[in-house]
Amino acid sequence: MVDLSKITTNGKAIYLAYDHGIEHGPVDLKGKSIDPNYILSLAVRGGYNAVVLQKGIAEKYYPAYQEKIPLIVKLNGKTRLVKGEPLSGQICSVAEAVELGASAVGYTVYLGSQHEAKMFKEFSQIEQEAEKYNLAVIGWMYPRGKGVKDDDSPEITAYAARVGLELGADIVKIKYCGSKECFIQAVKAAGKTKVVLSGGPKISDKEFLEIVKNIMAAGAIGIAVGRNVWQRENPLEITQKIKEIVFSN
Amino acid sequence: MVDLSKITTNGKAIYLAYDHGIEHGPVDLKGKSIDPNYILSLAVRGGYNAVVLQKGIAEKYYPAYQEKIPLIVKLNGKTRLVKGEPLSGQICSVAEAVELGASAVGYTVYLGSQHEAKMFKEFSQIEQEAEKYNLAVIGWMYPRGKGVKDDDSPEITAYAARVGLELGADIVKIKYCGSKECFIQAVKAAGKTKVVLSGGPKISDKEFLEIVKNIMAAGAIGIAVGRNVWQRENPLEITQKIKEIVFSN
Amino acid sequence: MVDLSKITTNGKAIYLAYDHGIEHGPVDLKGKSIDPNYILSLAVRGGYNAVVLQKGIAEKYYPAYQEKIPLIVKLNGKTRLVKGEPLSGQICSVAEAVELGASAVGYTVYLGSQHEAKMFKEFSQIEQEAEKYNLAVIGWMYPRGKGVKDDDSPEITAYAARVGLELGADIVKIKYCGSKECFIQAVKAAGKTKVVLSGGPKISDKEFLEIVKNIMAAGAIGIAVGRNVWQRENPLEITQKIKEIVFSN
Amino acid sequence: MVDLSKITTNGKAIYLAYDHGIEHGPVDLKGKSIDPNYILSLAVRGGYNAVVLQKGIAEKYYPAYQEKIPLIVKLNGKTRLVKGEPLSGQICSVAEAVELGASAVGYTVYLGSQHEAKMFKEFSQIEQEAEKYNLAVIGWMYPRGKGVKDDDSPEITAYAARVGLELGADIVKIKYCGSKECFIQAVKAAGKTKVVLSGGPKISDKEFLEIVKNIMAAGAIGIAVGRNVWQRENPLEITQKIKEIVFSN
Amino acid sequence: MVDLSKITTNGKAIYLAYDHGIEHGPVDLKGKSIDPNYILSLAVRGGYNAVVLQKGIAEKYYPAYQEKIPLIVKLNGKTRLVKGEPLSGQICSVAEAVELGASAVGYTVYLGSQHEAKMFKEFSQIEQEAEKYNLAVIGWMYPRGKGVKDDDSPEITAYAARVGLELGADIVKIKYCGSKECFIQAVKAAGKTKVVLSGGPKISDKEFLEIVKNIMAAGAIGIAVGRNVWQRENPLEITQKIKEIVFSN
Repeated sequence: MVDLSKITTNGKAIYLAYDHGIEHGPVDLKGKSIDPNYILSLAVRGGYNAVVLQKGIAEKYYPAYQEKIPLIVKLNGKTRLVKGEPLSGQICSVAEAVELGASAVGYTVYLGSQHEAKMFKEFSQIEQEAEKYNLAVIGWMYPRGKGVKDDDSPEITAYAARVGLELGADIVKIKYCGSKECFIQAVKAAGKTKVVLSGGPKISDKEFLEIVKNIMAAGAIGIAVGRNVWQRENPLEITQKIKEIVFSN
Repeated sequence: MVDLSKITTNGKAIYLAYDHGIEHGPVDLKGKSIDPNYILSLAVRGGYNAVVLQKGIAEKYYPAYQEKIPLIVKLNGKTRLVKGEPLSGQICSVAEAVELGASAVGYTVYLGSQHEAKMFKEFSQIEQEAEKYNLAVIGWMYPRGKGVKDDDSPEITAYAARVGLELGADIVKIKYCGSKECFIQAVKAAGKTKVVLSGGPKISDKEFLEIVKNIMAAGAIGIAVGRNVWQRENPLEITQKIKEIVFSN
Repeated sequence: MVDLSKITTNGKAIYLAYDHGIEHGPVDLKGKSIDPNYILSLAVRGGYNAVVLQKGIAEKYYPAYQEKIPLIVKLNGKTRLVKGEPLSGQICSVAEAVELGASAVGYTVYLGSQHEAKMFKEFSQIEQEAEKYNLAVIGWMYPRGKGVKDDDSPEITAYAARVGLELGADIVKIKYCGSKECFIQAVKAAGKTKVVLSGGPKISDKEFLEIVKNIMAAGAIGIAVGRNVWQRENPLEITQKIKEIVFSN
Repeated sequence: MVDLSKITTNGKAIYLAYDHGIEHGPVDLKGKSIDPNYILSLAVRGGYNAVVLQKGIAEKYYPAYQEKIPLIVKLNGKTRLVKGEPLSGQICSVAEAVELGASAVGYTVYLGSQHEAKMFKEFSQIEQEAEKYNLAVIGWMYPRGKGVKDDDSPEITAYAARVGLELGADIVKIKYCGSKECFIQAVKAAGKTKVVLSGGPKISDKEFLEIVKNIMAAGAIGIAVGRNVWQRENPLEITQKIKEIVFSN
Repeated sequence: MVDLSKITTNGKAIYLAYDHGIEHGPVDLKGKSIDPNYILSLAVRGGYNAVVLQKGIAEKYYPAYQEKIPLIVKLNGKTRLVKGEPLSGQICSVAEAVELGASAVGYTVYLGSQHEAKMFKEFSQIEQEAEKYNLAVIGWMYPRGKGVKDDDSPEITAYAARVGLELGADIVKIKYCGSKECFIQAVKAAGKTKVVLSGGPKISDKEFLEIVKNIMAAGAIGIAVGRNVWQRENPLEITQKIKEIVFSN
């Protein structure tokens, strides 16, 4: 099994996600968060285990931070402008990610989409290539498409986690399903594949930290968080609170 | 012709199928059956001829069981969330399966689907690659798509079996068509290609064992069973009863 | 030009076609005809110039007959279950066919289908590969798709034959257009490409033999026949009658 | 720039086009014109600069004429039976064309079709391959598809010519737009890419020769003609008249 | 990071765009502008930093200007005749562009199109290939498709710029969003990726120069202009005025 020690601390992890520029657009990147340097610096100061970037930003900004924080390169992406069944195609190879200094790679699988087979195939080829480099592969497992009614129901969340295991992901990033109990089921479904929470849109400190507590209690290894950190006035403060929960567990 | 001795006993076989996590979701994996170790241990204790796993589970769980039970790697898969004409794309190569320790490989062909040609092509390429390794290829032959009204009618069942033979499968896994008589026709249609029953959703012990009797009497070589074993209270007990029928024939 | 002597007698030929298992299903293979050994033995006893098989059947049954009758491997196929515009994708390579002992290869082109371009391309690549082995390529030229109203009209039949010539087929297999006169036009349209009749569904002896006479008089080199032989009580008797017409010409 | 001297006379040219068998069917090939030998012989006797054939006919008929008349191999084609957005896929490689003795290659681009991108890509790859052999590439530039209302309007005709230049064609074959004036615009739009007229369906001698005069006066280098020659009673007579116009200019 | 010095002057740039022949047709190329020599000569006399051409025009016209002005080869293109979701496929490789003398390459990405994933993939492969040659890659970032309501709104313009950064473009070419203020946001969103304005359809001198002032004040490095120069009576005069703004900044 792949070695996760470069992107975890005692088996736990917090990742600063920053691929919203392509997925959602600058509308999500208010104020200083539009600047990748601000985010990278925040990731370093906050003591994150890694920062998640698309290839373009990694190429132009990461070199200055390479010694300070590990990098997870997101290998696919799409804009929110495309209508219809979601397809997120590969736009960076594993070899390119390695050259950019990546310690792991990420790929979104829209299970349930009419294009599911294409993403399953790309994901499985990425795994083969990543194995050569002993690089961890993180599956952004998002149920989506006209066959998916309720993408964060307990049942669908556990399904997403399980598909990550069946496909061979080292870590899955999944949405919150609403309770500790259902997240326990998702973690069980993932088996030996580790689970991190997908932070999601900004909510109140209290609500968010409650969720972090629940998913850690449920057996997750941590969280990949973006908006709930850098859309806040004081991102280091919330980072500190998240870390207390994640690493004390 | 390929040597089936590694996955049969006197030409007969029972396989423990466990790819439901990707095909149906954890909803099918109640209780202990969510844990691949439980299933693998069950397969060993039950004396199954092989266990059927997706690449991800094989990678993370099979090494500990490699000496104890043969492995069939399922090379394609899809979730039940995708709507429209079914397409199950290849997500594991034959070479990867060999590396995982596989004694045979499986692939689902949805005959009748608008994507039939893609699956026919992948299946035929898998056969070519498998031949190099002298590995048996098992075709999950499932008629499906808007052109298929009744996927377990006698006529369609025999058609599925026949397509497996015409495509070059070593073994076909097909559904039950409702009687011994029609299964005889399916076995005939399959010719030198061996036939195993696809166990299907859980039914009563009596009904299930009756089916096993019928398909064995019809000339099948055995059964690939999942839910009808591990969704039961006492899976070893039913396993024993299945084995008595399959291997006494 | 390719040498056809291995699959003709004095430039004439009768082929026993047996790919109905994949194209139509076992519903066409009543009684003994479900058994490939029966068909192969019939082909030998009837003195056919070759037998037409899919790769799967060739692999498992042809070795025992290799010295007794030449083989034509059909390189593509589809089930009748698929709705919409027809696509028959390649499922056996020319190299595989050669390894199976083929003296010629066949491929169905559904001219008029939305997928025509895909089949044109595969057909043309097969020709290139076949040329290396000096293997004849037979085009099953079938006009089909929503743009084809009447697939056996004189005009469309001649069109099918002509497309075979333009694409480079050595032999085309086309349907009967209803009269000797129109078949003459089809043979003319095919030019130096040889023409064989596609036998079609079972009709009366008298009707069938009348057609054979007409197409031979029109300049065809023979016939590829299946159902009109092996769906009969006495297939050798009708074979004999066909041969008298075909080879006496 | 590629050398056109093998397929021009003092920079002018008449080509005898004969790919109607695949594009329109034998319905266009009345009387003797169904026979490729008749057409090849006509091309030789008429003193054409080259004859345009699909690969299949070139293979079977051209060897006997190789010393007598240059060959242009048409690399793609489709039947008129296909409904919907037109796609004409490549069915002969440049290397094959060279082996067949081609002095130039042709390819149809349906600009405006939903499949435009596929044909643009194939056309551009053909150009790269043809460059290695110093072979001229002729673009059959045909605006077609649901976005094209009037495919021989002055504007669309000039557009077709221009796209040939932008894509890198050595010669474009375009339809007549109705007047000398508009053809001047098309020739201007084509720039250094040479322009030949696409002869089109049979019209009266007078009308046709008037068009030839107009396009030559407009700066075209000649014409690729088929039906307006070989659908006539006396094809050599009209050929002579065309030549007088084309080469006297 | 790639060296832009060959196509900039003190980090600023004006490019003469001339791919309208394929994108819009000769309807845009009134008068002398139909002639590539006229445009190339204009680019030289106007002191442009580079001229933007499709492969076909570069091949036939650029050799005479190679010493006088740098070349940007546009690697993809489509006609305006195609209906439905836009797809602009690659028709020239980076290697070909280098052979043509290119100092940079351009590629249009229609973000929001159903075909977005295909263009993202091609764009990313072009970047990899361009890196080998140390060639700058310019992204024509155009939001388009049924999911894009208002393709030059402030939000969508900034989104287009950002996607260029995320994908790894060296320079993005984007539309004007209506004000200096919103262009500042787009430039911010692009980060270390440089921004040039897409000149757009012809407007009055005053309006156009006002826009140039705004985008330069907003932090753009310059402009790629076509119609607003060569559709004018005196293209050198407006060129001079543009240069004063661009290079004085």
